[in-house]
Amino acid sequence: MFQDRCNLAGLLYNPREPRAAMPGRKPPEDLPAMARIVMKFGGTSVADVQRIKNVALRVKREVDDGHEVAVVVSAMSGATNQLVKWVNEISPLHDAREYDTVVATGEQVTIGLLALALQEIGINARSWQGWQVPVETDHVHGKARIQKIDCAEMIRRFSEKQVAVVAGFQGIGPDNRVTTLGRGGSDTSAVALAAALNADRCDIFTDVDGVYTTDPRIVAKARKLDKITYEEMLEMASLGAKVLQTRSVELAMNHRVRVQVLSSFEDKPGTLVVGEDEIVEQEVVSGIAYSRDEAKITVRKVQDRPGIAAGIFGPLADAAINVDMIVQNASDDGKTTDLTFTVGRADLERALHVLKGREGELKYGGLVSDPNVSKVSVIGVGMRSHAGVAQTMFKSLAAKGINIQVISTSEIKVSVLIAEDYTELAVRALHTAYGLDGA
Amino acid sequence: MFQDRCNLAGLLYNPREPRAAMPGRKPPEDLPAMARIVMKFGGTSVADVQRIKNVALRVKREVDDGHEVAVVVSAMSGATNQLVKWVNEISPLHDAREYDTVVATGEQVTIGLLALALQEIGINARSWQGWQVPVETDHVHGKARIQKIDCAEMIRRFSEKQVAVVAGFQGIGPDNRVTTLGRGGSDTSAVALAAALNADRCDIFTDVDGVYTTDPRIVAKARKLDKITYEEMLEMASLGAKVLQTRSVELAMNHRVRVQVLSSFEDKPGTLVVGEDEIVEQEVVSGIAYSRDEAKITVRKVQDRPGIAAGIFGPLADAAINVDMIVQNASDDGKTTDLTFTVGRADLERALHVLKGREGELKYGGLVSDPNVSKVSVIGVGMRSHAGVAQTMFKSLAAKGINIQVISTSEIKVSVLIAEDYTELAVRALHTAYGLDGA
Repeated sequence: MFQDRCNLAGLLYNPREPRAAMPGRKPPEDLPAMARIVMKFGGTSVADVQRIKNVALRVKREVDDGHEVAVVVSAMSGATNQLVKWVNEISPLHDAREYDTVVATGEQVTIGLLALALQEIGINARSWQGWQVPVETDHVHGKARIQKIDCAEMIRRFSEKQVAVVAGFQGIGPDNRVTTLGRGGSDTSAVALAAALNADRCDIFTDVDGVYTTDPRIVAKARKLDKITYEEMLEMASLGAKVLQTRSVELAMNHRVRVQVLSSFEDKPGTLVVGEDEIVEQEVVSGIAYSRDEAKITVRKVQDRPGIAAGIFGPLADAAINVDMIVQNASDDGKTTDLTFTVGRADLERALHVLKGREGELKYGGLVSDPNVSKVSVIGVGMRSHAGVAQTMFKSLAAKGINIQVISTSEIKVSVLIAEDYTELAVRALHTAYGLDGA
Repeated sequence: MFQDRCNLAGLLYNPREPRAAMPGRKPPEDLPAMARIVMKFGGTSVADVQRIKNVALRVKREVDDGHEVAVVVSAMSGATNQLVKWVNEISPLHDAREYDTVVATGEQVTIGLLALALQEIGINARSWQGWQVPVETDHVHGKARIQKIDCAEMIRRFSEKQVAVVAGFQGIGPDNRVTTLGRGGSDTSAVALAAALNADRCDIFTDVDGVYTTDPRIVAKARKLDKITYEEMLEMASLGAKVLQTRSVELAMNHRVRVQVLSSFEDKPGTLVVGEDEIVEQEVVSGIAYSRDEAKITVRKVQDRPGIAAGIFGPLADAAINVDMIVQNASDDGKTTDLTFTVGRADLERALHVLKGREGELKYGGLVSDPNVSKVSVIGVGMRSHAGVAQTMFKSLAAKGINIQVISTSEIKVSVLIAEDYTELAVRALHTAYGLDGA
């Protein structure tokens, strides 16, 4: 189970001013003159009648430019929460089918209102609920996965200059009932629709204006990235960045959907999420991410025998506690070992409780925990072909006197766990060390 | 166009105490031991989570008694108004298809919540949107008419002891889009479903506890009717009584659906709306209705020639002004006539404006209007076979010194227009004259 426990909002933060000189509004250089575009607007972008009218004006510009447009919308912000609240008040352990019936109404309201707003300014538009497209999903109500989207009728209507306004977050299951994709599923709806439509681009309008090299609240010289690869975006999304849902990035990567993250409130280009082949001059490191929402646990002197890791992590998984970074050190005596790992800070007490309950069975020498840690990561596909990326990180942190507690790496990411007090210092040092500082 | 302009709430008023000794809760004597029932709950009955839970408990009783149950629900009260408000803010002259998409969500929320509330107390239940049943309608979005309901799957699920929770007010049109039936359409949904299911009874739960012989606020001795005929109910509904939508009564009459109007807040039998054959001892007059929402217009000295009525009423109809009672008297000179009619009080100024605009063409001698009139009606199928009903009315009013301004009659109704100040006096006199006073 993926848990959204890292604070990477910084990477996706909307600064006061654009960091780099940007050309005026024009389509990215590689968009055809008459393109097919999917535009997705989240809940804050359609939060009230006035904002829905603004979205209609934004859509009109693409229509006026000659493009075929499908718009995917979320529920008005707050609407879904109210619906979920009612469901929980009536039935805490609710039937997911009826949950879906109730919460899917939020998007149904916005598609109707946006279609009306478009018609009001002279645009031919109609709304599509999930079952009308249809967006076919599996049977897992509340967390359904899209299996097939039949766009034939929608494409026919594009030829009549009709804009499609599609409900995000929902589909229809094999039981002929409304399904929902789980929170944040509208991103996935948009990308899947773009794949099915073979769209030239999928624009995700949000309350941030793109993806940044790091949190501009910490690093004044943070730059908005023009482009980022799917793999890097996926790494950020799976670290908990709110700007794009993990599944939507996976889907975009698998179907080569070109995604743009941009602001629904400011009129300027955002960040394009694309394949590596589209990025000509790849930086070694694209961004520095951090998360304060970490806690460290060390299990002291556990027996160094097969099955001991399963004995510790199995019960934690059963308790739905996500374990992230793991290191295991041989101990001095050669018979026992120390096992250190991180969990979400909110899960710390529960994790300790689970492990104490297994003390008799695991026969460890002690439990040590520390909630005051943070994780700092450098991310970049370029590090695949460049040696020394991790070394630069370690040197830079050492130069500032920052002790590294745990290290974990993936093909395109190096993460270290440090004392929380040093977070900003570390992020700034690394931003400079990898040459990311803007003018 | 029917306009809801009469205040007959009195006939359907919920008094403090039951007027007649009523047996304890038990099914009406003629309901089979294992019956099929449609239960309809309006917006005030499902206004919040607690009330929805109460509705679930009420439904459970019927299930526990061994009946097959389909429940039809409206939107939570206020929900539809909010949705309509948003639609109008965005597009005053809105596309009815998108209007339907938006406003149909209100019922979708309540069916899901009620299904959950039923499941929570151990009842097997599932929700049905209009398109899922399906409830097929014509293409007239916003005011669609039900054409066909296919209940095969629902009936199959009755055999699995499953309760159907059906969205009122909505269906699916030939364009594969959600349609709505117009305000109050949930009554029609319930009766149509009862007809399609060949249900033994259709219970309409409302905020009144039945149909009364007259307004208990005016006549302390008003009695709740145990039974009333379709024809009488239709007369009351078309006079503007809010308890049942006119179309639902027509539908019940045409399909011989036994309808019960009862309170969703009090636990006692209501009023059964049935065919005349079910009413053994028919009273000559069943009820006294009144409406204060009337205004009288007299067009003086218009030429007494063919086409003059069309010349007057045509323009009023074009302005969507409903004309009700009409009388025409020959005038003294034999060449002109006085034409008197009533309109809704709210339409009076507009009606006068329309007629003044036609003065040159119609060449009438003058316009006289009076907004201070009310209409009092006696209703009863028994008057078909009893002479002297109108005469009793005229005598009773004369005995109280009440002047009759206009008279209109139908097969089962006599209405008179009187000065508004005499309304209560007239209603009380007639209630006594026709032997309707309770103990």
